Amino acid sequence: MQIENYIRAIPDYPKPGILFRDITPLLADGAAFQHTINILAERYRDQGITKIVGIEARGFIFATALAYALGIGFVPLRKPGKLPRKTVSQTYALEYGEDKLELHAEDISAADKVLVVDDLLATGGTILAAVEMLNKQQATIAECVFIITLADLPGAQRLQQAKIPYYTLCSF
Amino acid sequence: MQIENYIRAIPDYPKPGILFRDITPLLADGAAFQHTINILAERYRDQGITKIVGIEARGFIFATALAYALGIGFVPLRKPGKLPRKTVSQTYALEYGEDKLELHAEDISAADKVLVVDDLLATGGTILAAVEMLNKQQATIAECVFIITLADLPGAQRLQQAKIPYYTLCSF
Repeated sequence: MQIENYIRAIPDYPKPGILFRDITPLLADGAAFQHTINILAERYRDQGITKIVGIEARGFIFATALAYALGIGFVPLRKPGKLPRKTVSQTYALEYGEDKLELHAEDISAADKVLVVDDLLATGGTILAAVEMLNKQQATIAECVFIITLADLPGAQRLQQAKIPYYTLCSF
Repeated sequence: MQIENYIRAIPDYPKPGILFRDITPLLADGAAFQHTINILAERYRDQGITKIVGIEARGFIFATALAYALGIGFVPLRKPGKLPRKTVSQTYALEYGEDKLELHAEDISAADKVLVVDDLLATGGTILAAVEMLNKQQATIAECVFIITLADLPGAQRLQQAKIPYYTLCSF
C-alpha cells in the first residue's frame, strides 16, 4: 500500500500557483489510515518516548492515533487562548504576519523524551517554534515526524541545519 | 479506572463564573487515553459504521484514535477555509456571533452510517450543525458521542427533542 496514492494534489489552492496536498483521502480510507499509523508505531515503539506532541489541528489527527497505538500520553500544542492552565508560548513568522503556539507548562519537563508530530513540513516555521518551546522545557526531542514533506520548500534543510532529527513518510 | 478522575475542573476559565472541564490530563496519561478509546471501540465495533466524523479541533483527538482502533475511515468537520475540495457548510449561533463548519461534500453520502465525535456537549449548537450537514448528505447517523456532557446546559435535551441518538462517557 503506497501512502502517496491516498494524497490528492489540488491545483491553485489556497491560491493560484499553489499545489495543495490533501491528506483527507488518506484519512477517509480506514485501512490506509491504519497502515499509516502502524508504520509510525513500529518505528517509535520501545524508543523510550514519554510524550507524543501534536500540533493543532492536523497534527492532532496523526499524533493521537499514534499515542493510542503506543499507549503513550498525548500533549497538544495549541493556537493561543485554548489551554486553561499556565502555558509557555512561542511566536513564529508566517508568510504574512505571525502566529503563536501554546503548551501547558507542567505537561512537558526535562524528564520527557518527546516525539513531535505534524502532518506537513513546508517552510519549517511551525516545527521550529514547537522545538523551541520543548527546548525551553528542557525536554529531549526523540524526532519530529511528518506525513508529507514539500521538498521545494526549506523546512527539511532548516531542520538539518539545526541538527533536529526528523522523519517523513512522503516527499513531494 | 474512572475517566472523570482525569478531567480537571478549572474555575473562572475562560471567564469569571465558568467552570472549565480540562481534558488534557486524560490525554497526557497514555493508559487513561487508551482505556477511553477502548471503551468507545467496544461500543461501536460491528455496528456497520462506515465513517467516523470528528469536529475540529478537540473532536479530532478522540475521533481519529477511535477510527484507527476500529479501522474505519475518518472525515473531519472543519472551520471555514481549511478544506480544498467542494464543501457543504452549516452556520450556527454562538453566545456572541456565529461560526461555521465545512465538510468535503463527496466524503459522506447516503450510503454512509456515521458516528459523530466531539469532546464536549454543552449548548448543543455545534453538534446540531454537524447533524444538519450530515442530514443534507442523506447519511444515517449511528450516534453522536461525547467524552463530557455539561448537564446544566441544554445540549442533551436538544438532542433528545430532535430524536438524535447520543452517548456520553462523563456528565458534570
